[in-house]
Amino acid sequence: MSKVLDELIDSIKCLPGVGPKSATRMAYYLLQRDPKGARRLANSILNSFELLGKCTSCNNFSETPTCNLCLDPKRNKKILCIIEMPTDLLMFEQTHSFDGMYYILMGRLSPLDGIGPKDLNMGGLYDRCKDEQIQEIIIATNFTKEGDATATYITELLKDLGKKLSRIARGMPSGSEIEYTDSGTLAQAISERKTINQKF
Amino acid sequence: MSKVLDELIDSIKCLPGVGPKSATRMAYYLLQRDPKGARRLANSILNSFELLGKCTSCNNFSETPTCNLCLDPKRNKKILCIIEMPTDLLMFEQTHSFDGMYYILMGRLSPLDGIGPKDLNMGGLYDRCKDEQIQEIIIATNFTKEGDATATYITELLKDLGKKLSRIARGMPSGSEIEYTDSGTLAQAISERKTINQKF
Repeated sequence: MSKVLDELIDSIKCLPGVGPKSATRMAYYLLQRDPKGARRLANSILNSFELLGKCTSCNNFSETPTCNLCLDPKRNKKILCIIEMPTDLLMFEQTHSFDGMYYILMGRLSPLDGIGPKDLNMGGLYDRCKDEQIQEIIIATNFTKEGDATATYITELLKDLGKKLSRIARGMPSGSEIEYTDSGTLAQAISERKTINQKF
Repeated sequence: MSKVLDELIDSIKCLPGVGPKSATRMAYYLLQRDPKGARRLANSILNSFELLGKCTSCNNFSETPTCNLCLDPKRNKKILCIIEMPTDLLMFEQTHSFDGMYYILMGRLSPLDGIGPKDLNMGGLYDRCKDEQIQEIIIATNFTKEGDATATYITELLKDLGKKLSRIARGMPSGSEIEYTDSGTLAQAISERKTINQKF
């Protein structure tokens, strides 16, 4: 085969979830069917590295020192939500039920992948949380082993700030049926059951 | 969101089989986890367009005017196999049961997608098949509606050359069971049944 083509296929494999077969298909597709799109892709990758930095407030990717969301005067500055990835931010925003600020860890503690507290810039998180405006901090890492470990680490890190700390609720998903729920989730839903308010 | 990031996500969506959600995930992955791989991807896309052309003999992508396979003196020059895509060539080579030459159409006739005979450079195919060395031409387009139509078109196109034309066999897949075969395949296997040689 052609070396240039091999290099293209190999470099496409760096995308998450793309194996050798998909990479080969994508390479031929770009070359044969969408040269314009391919050039655009190449240029926007290079552009991104040139133009994008991290927001000094929330740690998200941003073209400006502080991102639009952090500059938005309508956001509630008293409450800070700590999340793993920018994609989680999009999910939170889609719920339209949170109007506070965010801090994005850009990952989770994962010793097996060699990601420790230093890799996640936990110092930056601490500094952000010290901000006097912030009264409550919601930890919204994933409910995976790594997410749980990260939440525990953050709780330890921030406890001397004396601020209200919370974690988003774990339990049965909305619309779910007990019959089809996995036992781990159900066990959590039992142990974290909520007292029903009977004062009407 | 950031415009630069939006542009990156949007440009990743040009890859086949990648929707908005995957594109977003890929974009953040490239930015956060694999900047080196991302730059390599961008550069190898741009390189490919600069360095790759089409082989004058088989129409495959190649860095040289004629590709290595077409230059290989060990290949049987008497037999030409017409396929749709370079990925099909890889599949044929993996079988180790074909040592002839290839011609790659780089697509199939597909009126619904606006791909007609001119888009597939059928003139180039005709010229290639005129080569006096070639004695047999195997049509190995896919067994889809478009592939069948393409095979019919090619048969018409080449019939005045007076060369042996064949098409790869259609039937039950190797190792398959009748119970689990779709009826279209089974019907074909019945109508294209092969006489058993009883002369031992």
